Amino acid sequence: MTILQPSRHCERAVSDRTALDALLDRGRVAHVALNTEDGQPLVLPTAYARDGDRLIIHGAPASPWHTRAAAGAPVCVAVSEVSAVVVGRGAGAASLRYASAVLFGSFVVLPDEQKAAALRTLTDHLVPGGAARLVPPTPTDVAGTLVLALPIDRWSLKANDGWPHDAADPELTGWAGIVPLVTTWGEPVAAPGLQPPLNAPDEIRALAGRPA
Amino acid sequence: MTILQPSRHCERAVSDRTALDALLDRGRVAHVALNTEDGQPLVLPTAYARDGDRLIIHGAPASPWHTRAAAGAPVCVAVSEVSAVVVGRGAGAASLRYASAVLFGSFVVLPDEQKAAALRTLTDHLVPGGAARLVPPTPTDVAGTLVLALPIDRWSLKANDGWPHDAADPELTGWAGIVPLVTTWGEPVAAPGLQPPLNAPDEIRALAGRPA
Repeated sequence: MTILQPSRHCERAVSDRTALDALLDRGRVAHVALNTEDGQPLVLPTAYARDGDRLIIHGAPASPWHTRAAAGAPVCVAVSEVSAVVVGRGAGAASLRYASAVLFGSFVVLPDEQKAAALRTLTDHLVPGGAARLVPPTPTDVAGTLVLALPIDRWSLKANDGWPHDAADPELTGWAGIVPLVTTWGEPVAAPGLQPPLNAPDEIRALAGRPA
Repeated sequence: MTILQPSRHCERAVSDRTALDALLDRGRVAHVALNTEDGQPLVLPTAYARDGDRLIIHGAPASPWHTRAAAGAPVCVAVSEVSAVVVGRGAGAASLRYASAVLFGSFVVLPDEQKAAALRTLTDHLVPGGAARLVPPTPTDVAGTLVLALPIDRWSLKANDGWPHDAADPELTGWAGIVPLVTTWGEPVAAPGLQPPLNAPDEIRALAGRPA
């Protein structure tokens, strides 16, 4: 796929599963597309985690979209990351540096006895190092949560880490290059009225300022 | 939609068009879902810009996916932004603070005479203040680029700016709160071999360290 067409000559397909896993492990949000009952495409964002050879998401049993996914509807899942804006000299030369994974398949529903471990994987992915101190989910939490897993077996991975295609054009003037986009963790903020009032644990406070 | 199920009671629907436009104007990547010819969902990321009451994307006329979109296939387009990880006390209480727009409709193909202005809008969106100094696209660029517009008329907007749902649970201990995710512009990097060698323009250098 292209993020912006003029950079397509910089785009490359990557067949390396290690690179796929690395991208999936950096991301937090997947965009999951499926068809509604009347065949219309619907894409929604959802938090996810990679758990070995599968992608884990969770949702509410009452959600029509999750019900469709749980019933095994074919899905397409995209995880994308943008690392810079590519600035060219001409209108139409701007693009994005990115990496993007697209996975195909169908979700399977995890049975209750596998949910707690999957929720822990999900939480540990979203909150680095945080799972160790977590209270296990209650049986009510487990029963009220739908946990879905997508096997990672049909996928493609694309990346653009190129430069503006018109940077070397001798007939053009003006600057050309990239402007990085950098995401970092901020300072943690305690929930209002947290009892007992606590500082964030060391592993969370240590995140501040680090690449996220 | 929910990003993570346990925070669903914090999620709220927003019917404010100004809020939709603000989200679309902050984002850079849309995830566009459509069905392939055999009815399978396919979702791909693409750079975009809002141009008044429409969303502009562009692509290669040879791309099967863009060809489907250009032919008026029903699409669903999601633009999402994550601002923090929500940390609870229990496994399953972690979620994301986010805003997410989902648009429905079909793209229309812009005629050649409208492409240059649309590409300028797209570039100006990706590179703040950058369009003023841009060379107009050449007729070859224009002819070789597919520019598509999606009317912004069927949409929904959801947001979660809540706290962990178990922060007030007197039976649980441990910290609960949010950890912000902050995206900023980095220092620009000139394309290798740029001739003449130039510093990035003031408006681009001024971005460094600013929220992106």
